[in-house]
Amino acid sequence: MRYAVLGTGTVGRVIAAKLASLGHEVTIGTRDPQATLARTEPDAMGTPPFAQWQPQHSQVRLGTFAEAAAFADIVVNATAGAGALAALEAAGADHLDGKVLLDIANPLDFSQGMPPSLNPVNTDSLGEQIQRAFPRAKVVKTLNTMSCTVMVDPARVSGEHHTFVSGNDPDAKKTATGLLASFGWPTGNVIDLGDITTARGTEMLLPIWLRLWGALGHADFNFHIASA
Amino acid sequence: MRYAVLGTGTVGRVIAAKLASLGHEVTIGTRDPQATLARTEPDAMGTPPFAQWQPQHSQVRLGTFAEAAAFADIVVNATAGAGALAALEAAGADHLDGKVLLDIANPLDFSQGMPPSLNPVNTDSLGEQIQRAFPRAKVVKTLNTMSCTVMVDPARVSGEHHTFVSGNDPDAKKTATGLLASFGWPTGNVIDLGDITTARGTEMLLPIWLRLWGALGHADFNFHIASA
Repeated sequence: MRYAVLGTGTVGRVIAAKLASLGHEVTIGTRDPQATLARTEPDAMGTPPFAQWQPQHSQVRLGTFAEAAAFADIVVNATAGAGALAALEAAGADHLDGKVLLDIANPLDFSQGMPPSLNPVNTDSLGEQIQRAFPRAKVVKTLNTMSCTVMVDPARVSGEHHTFVSGNDPDAKKTATGLLASFGWPTGNVIDLGDITTARGTEMLLPIWLRLWGALGHADFNFHIASA
Repeated sequence: MRYAVLGTGTVGRVIAAKLASLGHEVTIGTRDPQATLARTEPDAMGTPPFAQWQPQHSQVRLGTFAEAAAFADIVVNATAGAGALAALEAAGADHLDGKVLLDIANPLDFSQGMPPSLNPVNTDSLGEQIQRAFPRAKVVKTLNTMSCTVMVDPARVSGEHHTFVSGNDPDAKKTATGLLASFGWPTGNVIDLGDITTARGTEMLLPIWLRLWGALGHADFNFHIASA
């Protein structure tokens, strides 16, 4: 399969590397590839420059958002959530038409201080915004409730734990569930919450995720839904 | 110990019955006890009238919010979240002064349609609103992330699962944790998230809780934090 991963940050890199390791063709999309490659300093989050990561992942290509999306069968939104709609606009609605669009981002809002809040929240979600903006894309919200290292290696966390899928298209959710299986997620550990409005619920896990990160002192944890 | 349980709905009744079964003295607080006892029809949620529940729990007294709070060593807010501040105002700040106030409610907002949203949310929480309105009460947010039947009987859910405490007063959180132990919560399954602002995180679990209730078809489930 050919994948576009939109976003050059840690999440995008980890997902792209995993997809490439599984034998997929991967293009990472960015606003301005030359500018991305020209950076020599870590970003505000301490992430090393892309040019330092790229030589160890030479099978992963870098292109514009539009080039990546045009190339791909499946598009992964791994942008910082606040930039997601702009990135997808740049990717182009025509290049998303009919494609599965995995939205693994969260709409973190740093404008209200730390810890970040969410925008949108409560009566809307980033997943829904994306689905409304690109009605012919098949948006599936998934994997947004854990660190990216756990996304691609669920065995880092002991015992049973869950990921969720939200989306309007059952076949797209099947495609997502198949990809999750290849990442190491047993299908029984993938909970289908329903349509894309259920993305509100998974995005709203972020505030407690951030507090748990603080309380536990590490990010190798995840939500498990214990049941009768 | 003497407990006030504010709220005559299902949650208040289940908590009051459990506390009484543990040998505590319990008064349920309501706005107008005569009106509460006079009801003969189930409420909008199908909850049977209080007068039908009371004869099987004759050791639980019913009083005004103020009578219940004045009587109690520890106060439990089990109101519908939207009515919590009014109920606590009626209880009276003087009757909450220096007391542990367990806030187990969620600020569900039905005005935006179904499923309910939250108000406040994101940059504030009901737990914080209560702590600000009653600065001399020792507010601990806990148990608000599960059905009331699981609150008082965690063994209904298989395997390990968690509850959370949020609050500014370490001793009050110890008191809460002790009460949780008497309900069947091993201390190792109680995660201290930090100060009362962390109540935002637990209240924001409600939207996914409601969707999981739909997806699983029953309420005997709970969040477990799986960790490395």
